[in-house]
Amino acid sequence: PLRVLNKTRFITPSIMHYVRNHGACPKLEWDTDTLLVGGDVPRPMELTMDEIASTLPAREIPVTLVCDGNRRKEQNMLRQTVGFNWGAAGVGTNVYKGPTVRDVLLRAGISSDPATWRGFHVEFIGIEDLPNKIGPGPFEKKWGDKVKYGTSVPLARAMNPAYDVMLAYQANGQFLQPDHGYPLRLIIPGYIGGRMIKWIKELNVIPHMTENHYHYHDNRILPPHITAESAIQLGTWYKPEYIFNELNINSAITQPDHNETIEIQPNIGKEYELAGYSYTGGGRMITRVEITTNAGINWHTCELHRFEQPTDYGMYWCWIWWSFRIPIVDLISTDEIWARAWDESNNTQPFRPTWNLMGMGNNQCFRVKVHKSL
Amino acid sequence: PLRVLNKTRFITPSIMHYVRNHGACPKLEWDTDTLLVGGDVPRPMELTMDEIASTLPAREIPVTLVCDGNRRKEQNMLRQTVGFNWGAAGVGTNVYKGPTVRDVLLRAGISSDPATWRGFHVEFIGIEDLPNKIGPGPFEKKWGDKVKYGTSVPLARAMNPAYDVMLAYQANGQFLQPDHGYPLRLIIPGYIGGRMIKWIKELNVIPHMTENHYHYHDNRILPPHITAESAIQLGTWYKPEYIFNELNINSAITQPDHNETIEIQPNIGKEYELAGYSYTGGGRMITRVEITTNAGINWHTCELHRFEQPTDYGMYWCWIWWSFRIPIVDLISTDEIWARAWDESNNTQPFRPTWNLMGMGNNQCFRVKVHKSL
Repeated sequence: PLRVLNKTRFITPSIMHYVRNHGACPKLEWDTDTLLVGGDVPRPMELTMDEIASTLPAREIPVTLVCDGNRRKEQNMLRQTVGFNWGAAGVGTNVYKGPTVRDVLLRAGISSDPATWRGFHVEFIGIEDLPNKIGPGPFEKKWGDKVKYGTSVPLARAMNPAYDVMLAYQANGQFLQPDHGYPLRLIIPGYIGGRMIKWIKELNVIPHMTENHYHYHDNRILPPHITAESAIQLGTWYKPEYIFNELNINSAITQPDHNETIEIQPNIGKEYELAGYSYTGGGRMITRVEITTNAGINWHTCELHRFEQPTDYGMYWCWIWWSFRIPIVDLISTDEIWARAWDESNNTQPFRPTWNLMGMGNNQCFRVKVHKSL
Repeated sequence: PLRVLNKTRFITPSIMHYVRNHGACPKLEWDTDTLLVGGDVPRPMELTMDEIASTLPAREIPVTLVCDGNRRKEQNMLRQTVGFNWGAAGVGTNVYKGPTVRDVLLRAGISSDPATWRGFHVEFIGIEDLPNKIGPGPFEKKWGDKVKYGTSVPLARAMNPAYDVMLAYQANGQFLQPDHGYPLRLIIPGYIGGRMIKWIKELNVIPHMTENHYHYHDNRILPPHITAESAIQLGTWYKPEYIFNELNINSAITQPDHNETIEIQPNIGKEYELAGYSYTGGGRMITRVEITTNAGINWHTCELHRFEQPTDYGMYWCWIWWSFRIPIVDLISTDEIWARAWDESNNTQPFRPTWNLMGMGNNQCFRVKVHKSL
């Protein structure tokens, strides 16, 4: 819940980190689990966990993970999506440790010359057998077939050292929790959590985007007029432009808490501290967070609490926390408090939501209602 | 004007490319002009144009340049900014050719190891002497002093081969026009045009952001409550978070043209083709363009005309053009046509503008009014 995130702020205890799995958590052992590296690589390999942890250089960085459905509840209030409700707490930050996918691929013989990457993708596949819930698409999966959870990213993304795509075996200095992908999980900083395959079993270099069922039938933002029926009729699931990979900019107010009360009379000369988080995708820095108490006519600039240092490549992979001290007397004339962030591309959060079938990427200005009683 | 851009679409003839200079165009000669490479580099150099063109590998790619004040006219209609009016035609695309800044810096002895880049910036300085129009800041420029036009980017950005920061001596297969920076101009794909120094004379590696007057007093997006007076009083010009570097997402409708008329009666069964451009910053792909004829209640998905191939690193540095065939009968009930784009981060254009003192980065949904007469 938001009150926990508000308490722990920058680094989320692993035990408090949100969990979203598509099936039951598999029981895997460090000593017997392996990673298969295959496809169009000169040297296919099967790596044990000991080999991954002891023979490849490790990277250790904090990364904010966000469920694609963070704040989906608000979309469901407009019109039911195909997804269940999430509030604004589908997000957390851990310090992840593990080798980069680049280093794994270099060992498998992939060239470091970008001209050789064009057209190729790296496919990542988890270990679980999951139901194919949508049914047949163009890739010959039969209705009811069991499928693996998987995705792919362009080889150029995985090989670009600036992006820190990595295979994590530790979070916050400890081995992963089973629910977070023990023993090995894919981390793609700046992407949605739904692409960060847990219990990862296979990594293949392939000459096209993966045909994995979940790559196409999950983690998509479709145009607002597309319904469950028309998406199937029109083949919209298979259009690459509607993939949801890189996070859009978002914020939430975590203080005040839900149903928190403030007595006006004894505090009339004091200030109340509003607080919350903001994040964005692609390694961009959050540059500004603003709140408004009059629906966007005036905006106040919040104080930013930036805990993260950028990487050597200048990337920011974590949320920031912000605060704003509002005079309590101002709350008397306030019906709603809104928050929005800006990033270094000068993109910001929209005023209004755009409904989409999966209810993903919901990021309009976060609003808290203020109720007054005598 | 927009009608020219609409006619030439993807590649803008150099002679038609928008021009925004801060002073008179200097008269420089290929044979005598040189570039000084200095600051904290192991091997300072003075390069002639012949050396730049013949001894360094050349990169040749199309890049869309956008004036920071593109669409500023709409901001000035809300409240006068410190900038003059631009419509939506402050944008153009040329194929630029020249060495990357990375290759120049490698020759000057800068390491390719990212760990050595941290904290450093590359300062770029033009040749002209320009008036210091704002007055003294913290960097000891006296009121009325002549200053150079300059900027800096993080060394990590300049050295990252994915970003294609380059020194161009050709556009569209010909030497640069004098007004576009002959003989040498900085190109930073995905950034605003205002950072792409023309008639570039110096390139320095320095251990901090540049203190150049124009780096601080120009090309900024300040929070909406900041005025010309308070910006000076509060020192807002010097806050690094308000720099405008990476372009935000934007679109314009270029067809219909201003004051274009359509006779309804004889065309009632036909369609009219709407068209326009969209661009975004940071190498992100435009994934979707939509139009609405009812102020955002319904959106129609446009057809995208993508001419550019992504780079080896998967970057998109150019605008796309789009079209939508609307039944002419629908125009009868239409008061305004709006357009907005989405990029691969699922960021989109806001409904409403956010005024800012310099009137930069204006990118709310582009609106065309439809006037009907009997």
